[in-house]
Amino acid sequence: MAASYSIGIDLGGTNLRAAAIDKDGKMLAKLSGSTPVASGPGPVVDDMAQSVEKLREQFGRDDLVGIGAGVPGNIDMAKGVIVGWGNMPIFNGYAMREELSKRLGTKVILENDANAAALGEQWMGAGRGVDDLVLLTLGTGVGGGIIIGGRILHGQIGMAGELGHMTISPNGNPCGCGNRGCLEKHASATAVSAMARLLGLGHDLTAQQVYDLAVQGNDRAKEIFKVMGEGLGIALASLVNIFNFPLYLLGGGVVAAWDFFAPAMLAEVERRSYTYRSTLKIAPTRIEAAKLGGDAGLFGAACLPLQDVRT
Amino acid sequence: MAASYSIGIDLGGTNLRAAAIDKDGKMLAKLSGSTPVASGPGPVVDDMAQSVEKLREQFGRDDLVGIGAGVPGNIDMAKGVIVGWGNMPIFNGYAMREELSKRLGTKVILENDANAAALGEQWMGAGRGVDDLVLLTLGTGVGGGIIIGGRILHGQIGMAGELGHMTISPNGNPCGCGNRGCLEKHASATAVSAMARLLGLGHDLTAQQVYDLAVQGNDRAKEIFKVMGEGLGIALASLVNIFNFPLYLLGGGVVAAWDFFAPAMLAEVERRSYTYRSTLKIAPTRIEAAKLGGDAGLFGAACLPLQDVRT
Repeated sequence: MAASYSIGIDLGGTNLRAAAIDKDGKMLAKLSGSTPVASGPGPVVDDMAQSVEKLREQFGRDDLVGIGAGVPGNIDMAKGVIVGWGNMPIFNGYAMREELSKRLGTKVILENDANAAALGEQWMGAGRGVDDLVLLTLGTGVGGGIIIGGRILHGQIGMAGELGHMTISPNGNPCGCGNRGCLEKHASATAVSAMARLLGLGHDLTAQQVYDLAVQGNDRAKEIFKVMGEGLGIALASLVNIFNFPLYLLGGGVVAAWDFFAPAMLAEVERRSYTYRSTLKIAPTRIEAAKLGGDAGLFGAACLPLQDVRT
Repeated sequence: MAASYSIGIDLGGTNLRAAAIDKDGKMLAKLSGSTPVASGPGPVVDDMAQSVEKLREQFGRDDLVGIGAGVPGNIDMAKGVIVGWGNMPIFNGYAMREELSKRLGTKVILENDANAAALGEQWMGAGRGVDDLVLLTLGTGVGGGIIIGGRILHGQIGMAGELGHMTISPNGNPCGCGNRGCLEKHASATAVSAMARLLGLGHDLTAQQVYDLAVQGNDRAKEIFKVMGEGLGIALASLVNIFNFPLYLLGGGVVAAWDFFAPAMLAEVERRSYTYRSTLKIAPTRIEAAKLGGDAGLFGAACLPLQDVRT
């Protein structure tokens, strides 16, 4: 018999994962769904509901505080509707919260996955004990989440935190969002692969393969991570100037290359942010790697219904 | 006999101004100090205290809720100490709050002037009824203030909102803060003057004079405001992506040139921010001129001690 717990769902690019997590942040169980996200809203919501049922059977209905779900798209928070899921347009306009809630007979909180990851890191990861932080998640793109006073900053309809689309170079690489020089076009796994191609390292190298080359001492591969670090540094310097928060975290797969991009990144922040430099001795700004890896979103999603309990 | 009121002080670049403002936001009286700010901390605090005394005599000690003061420097909020006042280093490290408080025998709230202006606009200006907004003040430099839930965002020690030092062009104009391409080096009165010089319009033209030339149809002068608008647009697009707030305001003297810079600014925001475009029909983002002019800081400073009263 578990103490009161909640269920977090993380809808990724391929399939879903779900976890039961108790109110102290202990993960009780984790499972993966079986339906490809590309199957579309109906089958995916079936899969979500089944995953929740499995966990509910195991840990009890009475102790379940609530359900949170992170999805990789923009959400109209008031309506619980997905308004923009870049590479899965089949979900656009889908009232996922209501559907899931109806299917499960209980309240569901829907959240953007990058926001959920930021909350997860704040709750049980690298941000424990810190009320105000920013998380950048470096993956295929760059996701962002802003935590203020221990809560996700949503903005008007829930689209705050689109930090991957900050402009770091006004005439930089074109982005599908319509902008040029978005952070994510210069500092994501996709950007690393594209630079490898531009430098003649290979046509279809993954960021992991470029990282392996850097480890082997390849100068071009190292240069790629340096350029990525500079891009991150430009964005982080602005974020430090904007928020003056104590903590900025970097998560996502590409963070494995920390040793290759972090020096350039930190040098850039130090050079570009007077706020960073002038507070070094009074109240230093920490820029660090996140700790929960791929589980950050699960912790964050599970944290949402618990927030009223744990305060 | 006034209803309960507070006193706001705005310490400008040359001298101070002070105003008694009642809890409904009605300005009861406004006066200017006589001491140049360049005289340094001692004489300036004397001047501040005398101004407060004059207003206190006129409107009564019993009804005075409190005193707020905006200063054009970075403040360590916890200590009430000025930690960085760019062109007045004589104030750096000065414990203004304690000094003023001792002199007046009452509690004083110290605040950065751009933050105070943002709060003033939110209280009685262009942001009335809006809980979340950003104000950019375009003057000699570019100041910034962020209001979340009707309160100033301070960050760790009170240095949040340094929006004039967001990077809009990584290799742009050098800035005294150590960065390159800061917004304020591309979109302030100083930047307008510098561009006029670069374009051969004149060596010492003020932004006002460049504006007059634009009004007379001078193409180079118009181009300057277009470039300024583009710079503002780059920064605003990032701010819209970061905050998804309903309102972004522009204040300060250079806003008089709105008709010349706003079209380029808004076009840039529209092109660069997917958030701006995709919320147009759901929850549009307003980008507008501030309304209180030079009094925004006075209203904001006076609002600080009233915040507990008016909530």
